[in-house]
Amino acid sequence: MALRVQKYGGTSVADIERISNVADRVQKAYDKGDQVVVVLSAMAGVTDKLISLAKQASENPDKRELDVLLATGEQTTAALLAMILKSRGYQAKSFLGFQAGIHTDKASGKARIMDIDCKKVQKALDNGNIAVMAGFQGTDRDGNITTLGRGGSDTSAVAIASSLKADVCEIFTDVDGVYTTDPRICSAARKISKISYDEMLEMAILGAKVLQIRSVEFAKKFNVPVHVRSSFNEEEGTMVINESADMESAIVSGVTCDMNEARITLKRVPDQPGVSAKIFGPLAKAEIMVDMIIQNTRSDGETDLTFTVTKDDFERAREISEAVAKKIGAAEVLTGTEIAKVSVIGLGMKSHSGVAAIMFEALASENINIRLISTSEIRISCVILSKYAELAVRTLHTAFGLDQEK
Amino acid sequence: MALRVQKYGGTSVADIERISNVADRVQKAYDKGDQVVVVLSAMAGVTDKLISLAKQASENPDKRELDVLLATGEQTTAALLAMILKSRGYQAKSFLGFQAGIHTDKASGKARIMDIDCKKVQKALDNGNIAVMAGFQGTDRDGNITTLGRGGSDTSAVAIASSLKADVCEIFTDVDGVYTTDPRICSAARKISKISYDEMLEMAILGAKVLQIRSVEFAKKFNVPVHVRSSFNEEEGTMVINESADMESAIVSGVTCDMNEARITLKRVPDQPGVSAKIFGPLAKAEIMVDMIIQNTRSDGETDLTFTVTKDDFERAREISEAVAKKIGAAEVLTGTEIAKVSVIGLGMKSHSGVAAIMFEALASENINIRLISTSEIRISCVILSKYAELAVRTLHTAFGLDQEK
Repeated sequence: MALRVQKYGGTSVADIERISNVADRVQKAYDKGDQVVVVLSAMAGVTDKLISLAKQASENPDKRELDVLLATGEQTTAALLAMILKSRGYQAKSFLGFQAGIHTDKASGKARIMDIDCKKVQKALDNGNIAVMAGFQGTDRDGNITTLGRGGSDTSAVAIASSLKADVCEIFTDVDGVYTTDPRICSAARKISKISYDEMLEMAILGAKVLQIRSVEFAKKFNVPVHVRSSFNEEEGTMVINESADMESAIVSGVTCDMNEARITLKRVPDQPGVSAKIFGPLAKAEIMVDMIIQNTRSDGETDLTFTVTKDDFERAREISEAVAKKIGAAEVLTGTEIAKVSVIGLGMKSHSGVAAIMFEALASENINIRLISTSEIRISCVILSKYAELAVRTLHTAFGLDQEK
Repeated sequence: MALRVQKYGGTSVADIERISNVADRVQKAYDKGDQVVVVLSAMAGVTDKLISLAKQASENPDKRELDVLLATGEQTTAALLAMILKSRGYQAKSFLGFQAGIHTDKASGKARIMDIDCKKVQKALDNGNIAVMAGFQGTDRDGNITTLGRGGSDTSAVAIASSLKADVCEIFTDVDGVYTTDPRICSAARKISKISYDEMLEMAILGAKVLQIRSVEFAKKFNVPVHVRSSFNEEEGTMVINESADMESAIVSGVTCDMNEARITLKRVPDQPGVSAKIFGPLAKAEIMVDMIIQNTRSDGETDLTFTVTKDDFERAREISEAVAKKIGAAEVLTGTEIAKVSVIGLGMKSHSGVAAIMFEALASENINIRLISTSEIRISCVILSKYAELAVRTLHTAFGLDQEK
C-alpha cells in the first residue's frame, strides 16, 4: 500500500465531465489499495473570472479579501469531486485550507506555507477516506484565508505530500512531462524521464511552466518525489527527484528560452565605489526584480552597466534608471525589449568543463551574437536578439546531443 | 453609538452595482457613528446555480459536500462588499462562518446554530472595522462547513445580533416590511409598523416569506429587535419585537393564505385505539410533516380522518396512506390538491372572544365553504377550495378592519 498525493490542474477539472474523469483515475488508485489525497485547482478560467469580478468591485482589490474570493474556486472543485466519488460509493471528504491545517504566513496573494497540521487528513485516510483537498489556499495564524499565488496548488500538493510522508506526489497536468525543450519550438524535444530538483528549479525559474517554482523548492527541501504526468493519458511522465548516479550521464538536460525580459544599459557610469547601490537600491525599493547584471569597465575610468528585468517591470525600471542616470552623471540610458534569454541546464556541468565553449561555438556557427552571459553551477544563460530565439534553441538542443533518444 | 446588524438578501446583492448600493447604506450607518455588522446572502440565483452544478455531479449530492459548495456563494458576496468598502477608505473585514465563530449542530443543509463565539467580530468592531459576515453558514464541532437552510442568512443575522447584544437587527429585503396580507392579492393591504414575535412566527409558518421561521424563533428566544425593511428605499419598515401594550388594540394583525398544501382523507376508518398511530407513524418515519388533522366520528362507530401535507410530500403521503388504509380496513382514500389555507393571526385573540365567529360568518357571506378548521392561541385557519382563496383573503381583510389606516 502506497500513499499517493495526486494534484490536478485547472484544465483537468475544467467541467463536470473532466472532474468525473479525475474521479475515474482517483478510484483506480484507491481500488489498487493505495491511500489517495487529491489536491485540486479551480476550474480553468475561474480564477481569472473571479479576479475580473474583484476588479469590478475595486480598481485595486484589497488583498485579504481577494484571497477570500479566490479561495472559492478550489472550494468548488473539491466539493464537486468529493460528491462524485461519494455518489459512486467511495468514502471521500473535502478539506479546505483551514480544515487541512495548511498554515501560512500573512502575505496575502503569495503566502508561504509555514507548517501543516495534517492530523485531520491523516485520520480521514486511516478511516478509509479519499481526502480531497482544495489547493492554493491556507490560513494564517489569525485564521485569515490566504492563497499561495499562481500555480500554488502544486505547492499545496508537495507540502501535504511531505507532511504525510507520501510515497509520491503526482502532478497531473495538460502536458505529459518535462521536456528537454519546448516541443512547439523544437520538434526533436524529448520527454525527460528523470530530472533532479536543482535542474527542475532552474527550468522553472527560466519559464518552463510545468511546476510552480516554490513547489520544486519545497520538494527539494523535504525530498518529496514528484511525478509530473498527463491527466489525459496513462503514460509515465517525468520523475523529479534527488540527484542520482544515472542522471549524470547527460551533461545538459534541457534548453530553455525566456522571451519575457528586457534590457536596460546605463552608458558611461562613473566607476566609483557605491555607484551600484545608487542604481539598484531604488529598483529594489520599487520591488523590481533584476535578473542578470553585467558591468564592462572601460579604459577611460567609466563603466557600462547592463541589467535585465521582466517586461512587466520594464517601464517602471526605465523611468527609475533615467532618474538615477541623471543623478550619478551617466551619459545615457539604452534599452532593448527584443531580447531572448536562452539557457542550457544540466547537473553534468558540475563535473564537465567546456560546456560554455560548446554553447558559444554553437551560437556562433549560426551567426547569433551573444549580448549578455550569466551562469550558475548548473546553468549557462545567454541573452540574444529575440528573432534568433527559436534557431538558438534548436541549435543548442542538437549541439548537446538532446535530439537523439539515449 | 448603536450596534447595528444589517442583513441584505440575494436580490440586494445581485450584482456589483447592487453591492455598491449596499456599501452606500452601510457607510451611511457607520458615518453616523454606529458600529455595523453586515450579514450577506449569496447573489440572487447563485445558490440555485450551485445546486444545479451539484446535481450534474451527482443525482443525490452528498449533503456535507453540498454545504461546502453552497457556502462559496456567501463567501463571494462578503469578500466583494469588504473590497468595495475598503476601496472607499473604510476599514472592513469579511468573516466566514468559521471565522465568525458560528457553531452549529451536524445537520448538513439545515443546521441549527448552537452557540456563537463572537470574540473576533467584536474585536474587529472595537478596532473600528465594519464586519462583513457571510450568512447562511457555520461549522460543526469537527470543523465541517454547514449551512442553515433556505433563508438561513436571516438566522445568521439574528444570531450574531443576539450574541453581540446589538441594538437592532435590520433585515433588508425586496419588500418594505410585513403587510397585513399579500398586497398582490389584496390592494388594501397595509404595512404593519409593529408586530410581535409570536404573530410573526405564525405568519412565517403560514408562508409569509419575509423572514425565515427559525430567525423569528431565535429573535423571540433572545429578544432581538428585528427591523424588516426595503433595501431599495429609506422608509421605515416593520419592527418585530416583544408583545407590547400598544399592539393589543388590533384583534387581528394579518391574514395569510397558503396554497401549498394538499388534503388526504381516509374514509370509514375503524374507530379503535391505536389506529391513529398506524396512520401517522409511517408518515413520520418517511419524514413527512403533517399539518392539520381532523377526525369526524360517525354514528356507525367508524370515523373519517383528514389531514394536510405540503404539495411536495403529497404523492409520497398518498402512497403511504393507501397502503395503511388497506391494512387497517379503511373504506377508501380521497384526496384534494385544489385547496387553500386562509388564516387570521392576532395577539388580540387571546383576550377577545368571537374572532372565529366573525371569520366563519365573513366566509359564509361569500358562500365559501369551510372544509377544515384549526386554531392556535393567536391563529385561526380554515381550509377552503383554492378557487376562493383571493376572495377569502380580501373578505377577511375587510371583516377584521384591516383595510383602514388606524
